[in-house]
Amino acid sequence: MPQGKVASVPDDGLSTRQRRNRPLLVVHTGEMKGKSTAAFGLALRGWNQGWSIGVFQFVKSAKWKVGEEEAFRALGRVHEETGQGGPVEWHKMGAGWSWTRKAGTEDDHAEAAREGWAEIRRRIENQVHDVYVLDEFTYPMKWGWVDVDEVVGVLAAREGRQHVIITGRDAAPALVEAADLVMQTTKIKHPMDAGQKGQRGIEW
Amino acid sequence: MPQGKVASVPDDGLSTRQRRNRPLLVVHTGEMKGKSTAAFGLALRGWNQGWSIGVFQFVKSAKWKVGEEEAFRALGRVHEETGQGGPVEWHKMGAGWSWTRKAGTEDDHAEAAREGWAEIRRRIENQVHDVYVLDEFTYPMKWGWVDVDEVVGVLAAREGRQHVIITGRDAAPALVEAADLVMQTTKIKHPMDAGQKGQRGIEW
Repeated sequence: MPQGKVASVPDDGLSTRQRRNRPLLVVHTGEMKGKSTAAFGLALRGWNQGWSIGVFQFVKSAKWKVGEEEAFRALGRVHEETGQGGPVEWHKMGAGWSWTRKAGTEDDHAEAAREGWAEIRRRIENQVHDVYVLDEFTYPMKWGWVDVDEVVGVLAAREGRQHVIITGRDAAPALVEAADLVMQTTKIKHPMDAGQKGQRGIEW
Repeated sequence: MPQGKVASVPDDGLSTRQRRNRPLLVVHTGEMKGKSTAAFGLALRGWNQGWSIGVFQFVKSAKWKVGEEEAFRALGRVHEETGQGGPVEWHKMGAGWSWTRKAGTEDDHAEAAREGWAEIRRRIENQVHDVYVLDEFTYPMKWGWVDVDEVVGVLAAREGRQHVIITGRDAAPALVEAADLVMQTTKIKHPMDAGQKGQRGIEW
């Protein structure tokens, strides 16, 4: 648990309160497990603050469904029914982004990824959510489908309180440079090393 | 995302299915953010499987309340009311463990930690939960309040499907040795380095 001590006080003209409430760009990178789970664990905190949570999964398969999705959808319903927590939207590329209403973008991942980013950009510019989880979003940037400099520019110019959490391996240097918080997860030991395959409740 | 390939097939007399469904001991260790958030993110998957979730937080303060607690309590109510997901229990040392019904164990953390472990041991022996999150449990072991070898022995002998997730810095070598999955989180960059203090929705 952080002790609340800061390494240095920057000469940025901001008060401690202003600096404290600056929205964060968080990057969770590294190997295998832990990146997305940590991002969704963090989003639970935002939900509990009553914040609007927008999840955008840049995964290829329409079928891939993680337990977090069902849990967050349940939390979204809790918000609708009782007012506790915040609203939740969960969008997935593989199934065809829900706002495009067209199924099967499986054939053109690059185009689907660009559509996803264009929508996220619109939402950021309109301050739609308080927390954006851009899951596996490093890959469209890595593969050149989405321009890293444009992403960094849009994030740098974002207004209000909009926390952005990006997960995935091989985060671009410009993204790491722009981020406030970068966490890397390293596998020290994994069951697959001992011949154990992934299992439900753990891997998904 | 893991591809489901294993590095080697062990000569342990188990079928792939048996091996696949072996319960895991997971240790999330490393610096600052990401350990507990990843553990709770993982527990969301278990909840979605309809599993019984037991969280035991070995934190000192009764006041410390993270957003995950409220979110998981809400998910527990979703289970009670609709049958979706699994039941959730959340216990905290700092407030006095709920089962002892005595407040203010703040004066003897060692005794409170031992009580917590004794209860967890009983539950594991009685197969009460499917997922145990023992948050910050490395510290009572590090400080000698709870015997590491006893913990490792109880976990090794546990029956049925009981996944155990332990978080905290400085995990004991015997615990790491016994674990199936060990993830370490490393801070590459943190807002406190730039003079930004912790903020709600992010740090708690």
